[in-house]
Amino acid sequence: MNAPIWDRGEGCDAEALRYATGDDPLWDRRLVAHDIRGSLSHAAGLLQAGLLTAEQHAQIVRGLESLLEDFRAGLWTVEAGDEDVHSTVERRLIERIGEHGKRLHTARSRNEQIALDLRLWLREAAAQLRGAVLETVAIGARLAQRAGALPLPGYTHLRRAMPSTVGDWMGAHVAAWKQDLEDLQSALARARLCPLGSGAGYGVPVELPRAAVAAALGFDAPEEPVTAVQHGRGRAELAYLTALEGIALDLGKLAADLWLFSSEEFGFVRLPAAWTTGSSLMPHKRNPDVLELLRAHCRQVVAERAALLDVLRDLPSGYHRDFQLIKPPLFRAHDTLLASLRLVARLLDALEFDAARLDEAAADPKLQSVARTLERVRAGEAFRDAYRTESRR
Amino acid sequence: MNAPIWDRGEGCDAEALRYATGDDPLWDRRLVAHDIRGSLSHAAGLLQAGLLTAEQHAQIVRGLESLLEDFRAGLWTVEAGDEDVHSTVERRLIERIGEHGKRLHTARSRNEQIALDLRLWLREAAAQLRGAVLETVAIGARLAQRAGALPLPGYTHLRRAMPSTVGDWMGAHVAAWKQDLEDLQSALARARLCPLGSGAGYGVPVELPRAAVAAALGFDAPEEPVTAVQHGRGRAELAYLTALEGIALDLGKLAADLWLFSSEEFGFVRLPAAWTTGSSLMPHKRNPDVLELLRAHCRQVVAERAALLDVLRDLPSGYHRDFQLIKPPLFRAHDTLLASLRLVARLLDALEFDAARLDEAAADPKLQSVARTLERVRAGEAFRDAYRTESRR
Amino acid sequence: MNAPIWDRGEGCDAEALRYATGDDPLWDRRLVAHDIRGSLSHAAGLLQAGLLTAEQHAQIVRGLESLLEDFRAGLWTVEAGDEDVHSTVERRLIERIGEHGKRLHTARSRNEQIALDLRLWLREAAAQLRGAVLETVAIGARLAQRAGALPLPGYTHLRRAMPSTVGDWMGAHVAAWKQDLEDLQSALARARLCPLGSGAGYGVPVELPRAAVAAALGFDAPEEPVTAVQHGRGRAELAYLTALEGIALDLGKLAADLWLFSSEEFGFVRLPAAWTTGSSLMPHKRNPDVLELLRAHCRQVVAERAALLDVLRDLPSGYHRDFQLIKPPLFRAHDTLLASLRLVARLLDALEFDAARLDEAAADPKLQSVARTLERVRAGEAFRDAYRTESRR
Amino acid sequence: MNAPIWDRGEGCDAEALRYATGDDPLWDRRLVAHDIRGSLSHAAGLLQAGLLTAEQHAQIVRGLESLLEDFRAGLWTVEAGDEDVHSTVERRLIERIGEHGKRLHTARSRNEQIALDLRLWLREAAAQLRGAVLETVAIGARLAQRAGALPLPGYTHLRRAMPSTVGDWMGAHVAAWKQDLEDLQSALARARLCPLGSGAGYGVPVELPRAAVAAALGFDAPEEPVTAVQHGRGRAELAYLTALEGIALDLGKLAADLWLFSSEEFGFVRLPAAWTTGSSLMPHKRNPDVLELLRAHCRQVVAERAALLDVLRDLPSGYHRDFQLIKPPLFRAHDTLLASLRLVARLLDALEFDAARLDEAAADPKLQSVARTLERVRAGEAFRDAYRTESRR
Repeated sequence: MNAPIWDRGEGCDAEALRYATGDDPLWDRRLVAHDIRGSLSHAAGLLQAGLLTAEQHAQIVRGLESLLEDFRAGLWTVEAGDEDVHSTVERRLIERIGEHGKRLHTARSRNEQIALDLRLWLREAAAQLRGAVLETVAIGARLAQRAGALPLPGYTHLRRAMPSTVGDWMGAHVAAWKQDLEDLQSALARARLCPLGSGAGYGVPVELPRAAVAAALGFDAPEEPVTAVQHGRGRAELAYLTALEGIALDLGKLAADLWLFSSEEFGFVRLPAAWTTGSSLMPHKRNPDVLELLRAHCRQVVAERAALLDVLRDLPSGYHRDFQLIKPPLFRAHDTLLASLRLVARLLDALEFDAARLDEAAADPKLQSVARTLERVRAGEAFRDAYRTESRR
Repeated sequence: MNAPIWDRGEGCDAEALRYATGDDPLWDRRLVAHDIRGSLSHAAGLLQAGLLTAEQHAQIVRGLESLLEDFRAGLWTVEAGDEDVHSTVERRLIERIGEHGKRLHTARSRNEQIALDLRLWLREAAAQLRGAVLETVAIGARLAQRAGALPLPGYTHLRRAMPSTVGDWMGAHVAAWKQDLEDLQSALARARLCPLGSGAGYGVPVELPRAAVAAALGFDAPEEPVTAVQHGRGRAELAYLTALEGIALDLGKLAADLWLFSSEEFGFVRLPAAWTTGSSLMPHKRNPDVLELLRAHCRQVVAERAALLDVLRDLPSGYHRDFQLIKPPLFRAHDTLLASLRLVARLLDALEFDAARLDEAAADPKLQSVARTLERVRAGEAFRDAYRTESRR
Repeated sequence: MNAPIWDRGEGCDAEALRYATGDDPLWDRRLVAHDIRGSLSHAAGLLQAGLLTAEQHAQIVRGLESLLEDFRAGLWTVEAGDEDVHSTVERRLIERIGEHGKRLHTARSRNEQIALDLRLWLREAAAQLRGAVLETVAIGARLAQRAGALPLPGYTHLRRAMPSTVGDWMGAHVAAWKQDLEDLQSALARARLCPLGSGAGYGVPVELPRAAVAAALGFDAPEEPVTAVQHGRGRAELAYLTALEGIALDLGKLAADLWLFSSEEFGFVRLPAAWTTGSSLMPHKRNPDVLELLRAHCRQVVAERAALLDVLRDLPSGYHRDFQLIKPPLFRAHDTLLASLRLVARLLDALEFDAARLDEAAADPKLQSVARTLERVRAGEAFRDAYRTESRR
Repeated sequence: MNAPIWDRGEGCDAEALRYATGDDPLWDRRLVAHDIRGSLSHAAGLLQAGLLTAEQHAQIVRGLESLLEDFRAGLWTVEAGDEDVHSTVERRLIERIGEHGKRLHTARSRNEQIALDLRLWLREAAAQLRGAVLETVAIGARLAQRAGALPLPGYTHLRRAMPSTVGDWMGAHVAAWKQDLEDLQSALARARLCPLGSGAGYGVPVELPRAAVAAALGFDAPEEPVTAVQHGRGRAELAYLTALEGIALDLGKLAADLWLFSSEEFGFVRLPAAWTTGSSLMPHKRNPDVLELLRAHCRQVVAERAALLDVLRDLPSGYHRDFQLIKPPLFRAHDTLLASLRLVARLLDALEFDAARLDEAAADPKLQSVARTLERVRAGEAFRDAYRTESRR
């Protein structure tokens, strides 16, 4: 491994260090651009605070920008032997621009860097997800347009209850996704303040232009007091996964509906053959694996949220290395849900409704029991009496 | 048991009915006032729709109001033999005003009633909780005022890191509670639409004045489409428990801090003797049971949220009886968190800081390692070099 | 409230004490008999250790036995004003026999008493549950006997796959329950050692006859070292809830099967009308609420296990008051699962299979696709080729 | 992607197939050897059943064995374009030996193959883990030998309670690990029956020598009825993760102890400098990251168990594609816990106890309060009176 940034010349237990590092180099690859962006703002702050000269600052900026360019070109990444993205960038900056690179980390801690990187990532991730939900809403509306007028029995307790339509069924899903979009917006509330300047969690004994740095990075304000940054670690990420959990619950309900409605027994809707998978043994099978995996992946998003919460809970104030494990459930849940949304959007367009089966089901006279009861009511009978009469027919 | 509202004269398996009813009568006692309020609005809607005459409506109103009055006077409640609050109110109304009572349930389902009752309850519950958080914020600020200037080592990894103060420590908690208040507000977004008029989940085949009824009950609008009501069942309640979970995580962190800081080894703060409990065996003990139970109860609030989520998940569209089990985790979590907040508010006022122990800890020269490093930086040394020198002292 | 057993004359903050006590008096009512049984054994140990005279011991035994008798007769119980069962018994013993009652708690801690009480309770609870599972196994076998020969399509991915029978379907459930019985037995492994003599968790500075006391209470041996008792607190209870979770998963699968198979669309089986519930609005409804609540209750058993685990986790060695909250999820899960098992046993006997619908489904030629393929194989074709041919028919 | 084994010439939606396949090719690499071993036994069964000639069988065996050899030599693996290990092996076998390879899958389903592969994997994994626990037990005993006599205050409620020793503290951990070993053994109970011959979950319409195949693979017997195999899918894996969760809870307690005991305030034990990590900002820091990550990883093992349970729950009888997601939490939990155990074993040997700090703490007179009380008892005072006197000193 590369020598850690904090190497004290005392030697390291290699296995302990490997245990501590874990998969971080892998996950941190997602944060390289955000980390460099934060470093550029921090450097600007150091210049303003008089802790860098204009020349030192210019070199650092040049170095960071060329590192970013090279990273985007695929010329380097965080490697298995690195401890994390932050120390990798510092190391590579020093390699690239020499001595002045050693000044970038002045009055800064990795504790605030990772808090920053993740908030910047959250903004992007939420925007990406928002786009995918909006697309799904649009395609849901399209489905309602092409098939909305078809009758669909309304079920309660999975038993036929009242007349309804494909449009009203899809409409409930679309309404849910719209509410999810609001929740996604609220979830970002915890990412609107800038951690930079909070140091290891207790500030730093120099004056830094926190407000200017926060503004440059698109935040509302610096987070105050400085102790609040580590106090709240993981909570913006948890809020994000809460929003994802909500979407997952909604997609899970869609999966449950389609899994039933596309069974031979219900027969209301079909997946195109190209969307089904086969069996290795049974030649006749056309299996709705995508629906089952949609269900299963949505459940896993819920599980990832629980896993993230388990990282945070019951810890006293201040930074703890446990926070490192925020990343895996966060990134996995985002990837899983985004892939699922994209699948759902295409799936909705592909669904084939079986009008004949729907008509047949809709003709079930049981579905009219309330209509019959209310006719008696209009004729003057008290509702409960009319209900009783009808129930004993 | 009383005959169920839907009794068909076919007989009931008593044990099956008992299993289905469970503890509902007990939990439903919290909803009597909300249920009657909803019934009054529904009756007004029926009048407007021409499904009740003025006379019928007046009798129903008189009956419901006197039932509410008697309930508040403790003269009746939902009993073990009742199926739920909704059928109990209907039964008692019929007993009280006779035939016209049989008209109240016209074009209405218990499925929408319970959705309504819980949303009305959520509004009240959130207001109550909001008050308790605000009180805690105020007392936290008071603590910062009386003891904020005391030094407190800042810890990372539970090891002394940087100088800090009691004020900054408490300030982070207060900032967290303020953010929690925002989340509590957002949580109500899912309770702002009125379920009435959605029937069993698919509407009813009569025209009801949904907008007027929604407005009368203080909602923004009726929920549309009607299918959305049962589709979203439990989600407003889940959003509420998410907000409570957030507060519980914050109080859990406070418990963790105080549990450590009040140990003999840290010695930064004391619980008054009257707040400690004793041992049945060891005469010297003064145990911080309240801190441990605060921690444990906060964990249970998290567990209740998970329990509520488990009620909802993976169900297809439409009403399912599973939703009945939304109530126990919802009510238990609210009660537990409210009691915990009230304890915390009083506890903060009771804490006794030990200035001598705090001063002693604050004098630890390790806490100044960054200050020493930054002095070198100001003298021209590059940060990473100054850090290395200092780290090897 | 009654003065706590450890009252130091310093006064107590009444609200703090109430928060600490919580619902304990209520839950502890289940443990009165076990607690007294443990006290009788402890008293015998004190006699043997020379810490009680024969006369003192005889009085204590008389007192405890009459307390137990009165409790069983309903003459007293743990009351809202009591801290817990242990101090209530001590207080009542002193009231009943006077001074000598003050000697019962010699060299003993409530920490070991509650560990003991819960292990004694676990043994009883497991025996009760075992009986209920055995009954369900027997009734499952009876169902297989009366209806086992009926055909039932075998489903994969909820799509018709292969021919099968009601007998093979039920057989899988019965096999699962039998495996659950084994797990229930293994779960008791953690309750086979006796906590008595471990004091508050670190032993007591007198010699107690631990082995004799353990044997008298039916344990294999005293738990050693004494520190292991509090170290392992809650783990026997968690193992028990793990076994219950397993049963809940199996009953949940049964609920899922019957919920589908009894739908109008599948129509393979019917619940008798007396087992269904009605709608307040729709006169025609016969709802399978018991199946939905079986599902929901089984999910709650899973949630209770998670809640119990959350009580225990991440605590350092030694006793913590958090352990008090082991009881609610433990008792709730046991009650819920026992009621569910009893419901299932009766339900299996009540199920009515629809032979005509089953025959119709079984005649689906798709179910024979493997048989047709294997005929080609027997005729010499390679399996994968035969499969391809068949799949393109 | 390679054409799926079940390719029907109908075309596949590439994105849907990619969604369905997910990371399976990656996870399945762990199962190649087990899958081939199962195929060899299945082929032997086909030979015995007369479905393969001796020549066909010999070729298949030769092909499978050379595939296994090449896999072990790193010459091939499951690739991103493969659907799963089972179809990859079939495809490669056909490529290698031609036509006869198409006969291997006769009367077999991937549903039973994966159940088999995972049970074979579980046996190996459990043996590996058992070895690691045994090693930890041995090193724990070694620690007790070298440092066991050192005094260590016994804590309750994180407050000094009674005298104890390092030996009794370690002894409780060791006792817990020994109990964990028993649980690990019980966990394998659900993996002792052989799935082969169960086909897609409903058997196959030919007679296969199930008992012989089961014996050849080291199972007690074939699983009966055939429907039980898919009914119980994931339960052996869940039982395994339950055992791992138990170990994780125990290691988490060790982490909690050492995290406290190695703090500056407790000061009972030190991690060697080489085991600590540094700060990027604070030159003086020696952080116990390994302890925090041990805690965090143990929490994640608990989360992985919950994730696996979420895959299985609430599904009706029969195979569902959801089961594919059993693998990620299973493998991740195993890897994480094994790495953690190995770390702990080395860590225990590295711990440095501070005898002076321990002696100082042990001299706290509060620790003797019970001894003083019992002296009064020996002098004739009733325990509760002696306790009161002592408590008011």
